[in-house]
Amino acid sequence: MFSFIYRRKGLIFIFFFIFGIWLRTQGIASDKDNGQKAPYLDLAEKILKEGLKEEQAFAVLKKLTGIGPRLTGSPQAAAAVELIRQEMQNLGLENIHLEPTVVEHWIRGAKEKAKIVSARYGTIPLSVCALGGSIATPETGISAEVVEVQSFTELQKIKEKAQGKIIFFNRPMDPTILNTFDAYGKAVDQRVRGAVEAAKVGAVAALVRSPTTRLDDFPHTGLMRYDPQVPKIPAACVSTKGAELLSQILKKDSSTIVFMKLDCRNLPHVTSYNVLGQITGSEKPNEIILIGGHLDSWDLGTGAHDDGAGCAHALEALRLIKELGLKPKRTIRAVMFMDEEFGGIGGKDYAQSENRREEVHLAAIESDRGAFLPLGFGVGADLKTIKRLQRWEYLFKTIGLCWIRGGGGGVDISPLAKNGAITIGLIPDCQRYFDVHHSGRDVLEMVNPRELELGAVAIAIFSYVLAQEGIE
Amino acid sequence: MFSFIYRRKGLIFIFFFIFGIWLRTQGIASDKDNGQKAPYLDLAEKILKEGLKEEQAFAVLKKLTGIGPRLTGSPQAAAAVELIRQEMQNLGLENIHLEPTVVEHWIRGAKEKAKIVSARYGTIPLSVCALGGSIATPETGISAEVVEVQSFTELQKIKEKAQGKIIFFNRPMDPTILNTFDAYGKAVDQRVRGAVEAAKVGAVAALVRSPTTRLDDFPHTGLMRYDPQVPKIPAACVSTKGAELLSQILKKDSSTIVFMKLDCRNLPHVTSYNVLGQITGSEKPNEIILIGGHLDSWDLGTGAHDDGAGCAHALEALRLIKELGLKPKRTIRAVMFMDEEFGGIGGKDYAQSENRREEVHLAAIESDRGAFLPLGFGVGADLKTIKRLQRWEYLFKTIGLCWIRGGGGGVDISPLAKNGAITIGLIPDCQRYFDVHHSGRDVLEMVNPRELELGAVAIAIFSYVLAQEGIE
Repeated sequence: MFSFIYRRKGLIFIFFFIFGIWLRTQGIASDKDNGQKAPYLDLAEKILKEGLKEEQAFAVLKKLTGIGPRLTGSPQAAAAVELIRQEMQNLGLENIHLEPTVVEHWIRGAKEKAKIVSARYGTIPLSVCALGGSIATPETGISAEVVEVQSFTELQKIKEKAQGKIIFFNRPMDPTILNTFDAYGKAVDQRVRGAVEAAKVGAVAALVRSPTTRLDDFPHTGLMRYDPQVPKIPAACVSTKGAELLSQILKKDSSTIVFMKLDCRNLPHVTSYNVLGQITGSEKPNEIILIGGHLDSWDLGTGAHDDGAGCAHALEALRLIKELGLKPKRTIRAVMFMDEEFGGIGGKDYAQSENRREEVHLAAIESDRGAFLPLGFGVGADLKTIKRLQRWEYLFKTIGLCWIRGGGGGVDISPLAKNGAITIGLIPDCQRYFDVHHSGRDVLEMVNPRELELGAVAIAIFSYVLAQEGIE
Repeated sequence: MFSFIYRRKGLIFIFFFIFGIWLRTQGIASDKDNGQKAPYLDLAEKILKEGLKEEQAFAVLKKLTGIGPRLTGSPQAAAAVELIRQEMQNLGLENIHLEPTVVEHWIRGAKEKAKIVSARYGTIPLSVCALGGSIATPETGISAEVVEVQSFTELQKIKEKAQGKIIFFNRPMDPTILNTFDAYGKAVDQRVRGAVEAAKVGAVAALVRSPTTRLDDFPHTGLMRYDPQVPKIPAACVSTKGAELLSQILKKDSSTIVFMKLDCRNLPHVTSYNVLGQITGSEKPNEIILIGGHLDSWDLGTGAHDDGAGCAHALEALRLIKELGLKPKRTIRAVMFMDEEFGGIGGKDYAQSENRREEVHLAAIESDRGAFLPLGFGVGADLKTIKRLQRWEYLFKTIGLCWIRGGGGGVDISPLAKNGAITIGLIPDCQRYFDVHHSGRDVLEMVNPRELELGAVAIAIFSYVLAQEGIE
């Protein structure tokens, strides 16, 4: 009787064993169905559970956004440096220190004023914001007729009409492009170079449609640049609703005037800081896996997604690693960079610092695409390296991410490529990002604590595995 | 000279051909790198672009939520039936008609009142809502001491203390579970059966912690059930903040009293309708691919995610198919079900209707998990069928989805399994769903138009491909 049972058990075992293999070849069963768990799978699940238990990344983000907007050079940016230093101390990180970086200090001044003045439609207020780096208008503001264009090419064609006018760059972000970052990349030239191109043809100001697919009344700020060879003229973004309205009115009344008044200006440069803290590697302390985001933000919201989330991700990732008592072989270092928004000086200074001389940065993981649901990692490396890192994809699938792909990192870590680091970006869902990006909507209330936490969990897992296994 | 160039071109071609194969075996290149595009890939991209161009699904959802909350049996539910019928007409759908279904008609009555009354802490208001199906309290309300438990097992253990008390079921939704629907499933017994279990031990009312991981002051309603063998007592949900507070106070002052007053009641049953409209198949009109959601909603918000989104998904999917001039071989039918929330009568009646006699339902796709970023499809079928449907996974990857897996459909379509249909659920990101589910936060403002649209795009592609290719 017993032997029969045993034999039956054996047959059942063989059946399920073969069935299991078949399931896996069919791509139906996951790695978890394997009797022996794949490396780090248990750990990934532990990190996930610890991360989701309480809203710790959200608590950090609440403190950081509680400081307010953190424009480079501002007192709030200095407060953020000190807050993060203290948070790193509270976490018991090692080698906590500040590395100086000299940043621009632009201020918005008094709230912008703008309106449409049309003989036919009357006076209608416009929601505008000065662009980062713009000069002010005269104190009395600028009033001028408006020429609408969709591109610099179109501007060239009608340049005779541009003299003394405000050039209104109204090319929308293309909503049909799935990846909103790609669509942003195709629209943002208007914001960055609009003032220069407009000044070249004699315009008195540039007014740019906010780069977002959302139709609302929030203007989105962001960096613009001047050319030393071209006169400086003021530049502002207008909300998408304002842009639509202005465009409609111009079609009916081409003599419509826009009034705008900007109070912004550049103040002297300021010495600010990148903030560093780490878990020092037990075996190869000089080999570094960097994780980070940037401390500075635009000033219309409180930089919750851009890039408070990246800072919270990095701090929470280290907390998770410490909480689980993990001792990485290589150093995992969190760096909160200063000044991504005004040119990425902090990232450049970090990479070129004397302090890097004895250090080998194997990989740098940046989170600078918001606190939305993480979907994967983008790796800036050769195909062979990407392929090699893809062997860890199964770990991320267990926590809901979908892929490791070619892609790249972020502005702050890209200079580290020259130091030999693989640059890696956490890639969350991008559909909602440009709803909030650089606008008054980029506030804590727009962040979901679970989505935020999952980014930290993903970074904790990746940084720890790379610290253990290296990048070979 | 020419021949040399041709030969060189040939070599280059062979090189890239082999390189391409290698890339694909390495899992680096996607299907899109293939010279010849995989079937339906062009079409999927066209549907994507058409979908993202304008916010059409959002426009439908705006109309639907504009009606207000749509409790089964309510005038607003009737308005939703008529709105959708008209929308189907505007789309030029065929075979538009209403199929009757008799539904419950429960109303909330006057807004609930509740408060904590503690000798030590004073009187503190509580945010509560009556549960769907609950009886009212007496007009003067119920005041009773409170017994807190985490489970029915615990309730059994302390049942001597329960007589004349309010049982406070305070087991939180487990935040450490990645899939929030799983966590919900493990918490919702308290809401559904709390009143029965409490009444069995002599309690006078049940007060249940809202099933959400979010800590806020929104109570979440939902269905509860009575047992004919057990006295009916009133049942309400309390916000998570209220639950935490009450629990803390009870620890300090066990004689704390809760007062609650509910005005809800059941009215006579109402004849309502499922709404049908379709694109009739050109070759096999009696073979049907059903797509749908449910028209009814809870009444604290406006059912934007649950399940206005599902209705908008189905309508927009058919609009996309028509807009691109596609003529499906099999019928693609949109069904907006009535009464998912009060027991799924509409879905049962649809499946069992005389009208189904000549029809073969090959597959039914439901969207009833909100308007969040779609991640994949869950297929309720045998492994062989799942595997077969997974051959279309590459189409969904091009629009950002990640997988087709085993899983299942939704309440409305599950009765169709008996009709032989494969039931399929659109699975969006679930991290944010229970922030809004059945609460006052389930409103249009919580929906991102692009995320919503991507769900419609995914359903359009899947339903059209199945209509062309069948399920074999």
